[in-house]
Amino acid sequence: MMASFPTAEKAADLLALVRGRRPRVHCLMNTVVQKFTADGITAIGGIPSMTSSEEEIESFVTKTDALTINLGTLDEARRKVIRIAVTIANRQGKPWIVDPVHCDYSPSRLEFAHELSRLHPSIVRGNAAEMAVIGDVGGALRIQTGAVDSLSDVDRKVRIVNGHALMAKVTGTGCLSGGIIAAFMAVEPDAMLAAASALTVTGVSAEIAARHASGPGSFEVAFLDALFNLKSEDILSHARIEHDED
Amino acid sequence: MMASFPTAEKAADLLALVRGRRPRVHCLMNTVVQKFTADGITAIGGIPSMTSSEEEIESFVTKTDALTINLGTLDEARRKVIRIAVTIANRQGKPWIVDPVHCDYSPSRLEFAHELSRLHPSIVRGNAAEMAVIGDVGGALRIQTGAVDSLSDVDRKVRIVNGHALMAKVTGTGCLSGGIIAAFMAVEPDAMLAAASALTVTGVSAEIAARHASGPGSFEVAFLDALFNLKSEDILSHARIEHDED
Amino acid sequence: MMASFPTAEKAADLLALVRGRRPRVHCLMNTVVQKFTADGITAIGGIPSMTSSEEEIESFVTKTDALTINLGTLDEARRKVIRIAVTIANRQGKPWIVDPVHCDYSPSRLEFAHELSRLHPSIVRGNAAEMAVIGDVGGALRIQTGAVDSLSDVDRKVRIVNGHALMAKVTGTGCLSGGIIAAFMAVEPDAMLAAASALTVTGVSAEIAARHASGPGSFEVAFLDALFNLKSEDILSHARIEHDED
Repeated sequence: MMASFPTAEKAADLLALVRGRRPRVHCLMNTVVQKFTADGITAIGGIPSMTSSEEEIESFVTKTDALTINLGTLDEARRKVIRIAVTIANRQGKPWIVDPVHCDYSPSRLEFAHELSRLHPSIVRGNAAEMAVIGDVGGALRIQTGAVDSLSDVDRKVRIVNGHALMAKVTGTGCLSGGIIAAFMAVEPDAMLAAASALTVTGVSAEIAARHASGPGSFEVAFLDALFNLKSEDILSHARIEHDED
Repeated sequence: MMASFPTAEKAADLLALVRGRRPRVHCLMNTVVQKFTADGITAIGGIPSMTSSEEEIESFVTKTDALTINLGTLDEARRKVIRIAVTIANRQGKPWIVDPVHCDYSPSRLEFAHELSRLHPSIVRGNAAEMAVIGDVGGALRIQTGAVDSLSDVDRKVRIVNGHALMAKVTGTGCLSGGIIAAFMAVEPDAMLAAASALTVTGVSAEIAARHASGPGSFEVAFLDALFNLKSEDILSHARIEHDED
Repeated sequence: MMASFPTAEKAADLLALVRGRRPRVHCLMNTVVQKFTADGITAIGGIPSMTSSEEEIESFVTKTDALTINLGTLDEARRKVIRIAVTIANRQGKPWIVDPVHCDYSPSRLEFAHELSRLHPSIVRGNAAEMAVIGDVGGALRIQTGAVDSLSDVDRKVRIVNGHALMAKVTGTGCLSGGIIAAFMAVEPDAMLAAASALTVTGVSAEIAARHASGPGSFEVAFLDALFNLKSEDILSHARIEHDED
């Protein structure tokens, strides 16, 4: 059976599912953008949690529906907690995504990103510089975000053309997209369909937000509003999802 | 002598006192919402501080007028610092409030919430799920926040009906309300009067903010503006404080 | 040869250089205002990074063009990382600024501020209460920020009169100004010219933002927009830079 390709209709349906089921998303998130990520996951309909405490991580991962692991502001304590979280998520069959922030800056962070890539994440997502040094991600869905987001697994290559240049002027939009992808994976087992839908929703919301923005400050505010208010018809009319024909 | 009940007039008077005296509020706050809490305390007229460093906590608690202790993103280091802070606050007769965030998720967090409840906090405040597992809070004022906030001590049961649904869509409004309650306790020794007034001020500000908001992003911005600009007449005309007649 | 004095024209030129060269600014920043600082540095044209991890700090300082060291939420781990960062920055000849937040509250923080002052920072910047306890800063440029910012080195005394009272109502504007000063030092070796220009840009942006603000929430948003959109002519028409004639 052929794997199916993402569509605007699928994105709209999955957004409705996220809002209906309200999945829990646990975030092992850098300290810089914890609130922005939590606000974005809430805006889209999910329920975020954020602790990185070693004695609490098992309880929180056991309660969550999906996990996003962000390597910003990484130290030995966070590495240890991430290993525990991944072990539990794998044992419980929960989807998780790795966001190897700035692994092109730091050898120790890159080494850890490689370690995580071998532990069967659902998705590895980074920008061009990060994905260049990451290299192979095993069986995971590979996502390179930028002006155009490129997604690839063994069967499919997909591009999401939605988005806006102001996203790069607000710290944490990439980190937040990891959290939103996790929320979509909680309601859709095919990581490609989940991630492409999440990135379409994020990109269309950014386009709507940019119409109301006069700079990065007002864009961030309008972006949270747009995620919260996004309608199926917005997705259907704005989505620009491309894929290579077989 | 009968304990008095909170009123709109009292809330307006205490807000004026907070703005006049500018109390210091030290926050042992989860890392997610530190800035939002600090901004909210400043907007209402207080002076926030935030360090959780073990070697600094004594200096900061000694300088502060009230303390809010939030159990989000809890680990062993924070637990240790919280114990020191509580010991100093109790010795110096300073009011403190416990916010047992997500103690329904984590057994170790619940256990610590119980430990703190026995150390004579002025107030324990949580949502319905948290307060259900917390159970008895000894002699402290008990506050369960939600669509309606319910406050109870040995003498009085009070309900604050003010607020807006968008508060639940912004991460940290509950944590912030703990900081605002602490600021009001710094100017009013009766914890019931202080907390009911603080929650009325917070709830009325949220109602005003919601008129200018088109989603959670713009609501958060408008909420900080409303806290800063709130007038006595706004409180007098909007407050919905209820209590059981004896 | 006489050292030159800062001017509006110089501030406009340096802003253009920052936007053209996009300097990297590493921030050892308190956990409260990491995102606000990162957003502000990005808005002005720089590229922020934030890790405080011991095993990563060497990689990040080696990649950066300038460093801002903020003593908020200080503990032993951060102190250790700061010492490493300073050693590397000094060895590589990179400019760095110290922001001794709340060193008037905490003896251990003041002691560390004194230690750093002896390690040849380019700049020490604080408010009146902080600078009073700091005392001598060796050969560094000394900046006392407030309603008027006062800058002094061995040759020059300069005052920046730009700014707005709402800056004091938003947590982290002082911390952010440290990051913006660092970005300007990355393109201008004379610390006085860099800092005076950065504070002029920050102050003029705040004045523009205040016109669109109805409180601290909307001011913060408008401030980030204003930093992003600031034009040379805004600086030339608004700058109020004063200095003592020799």
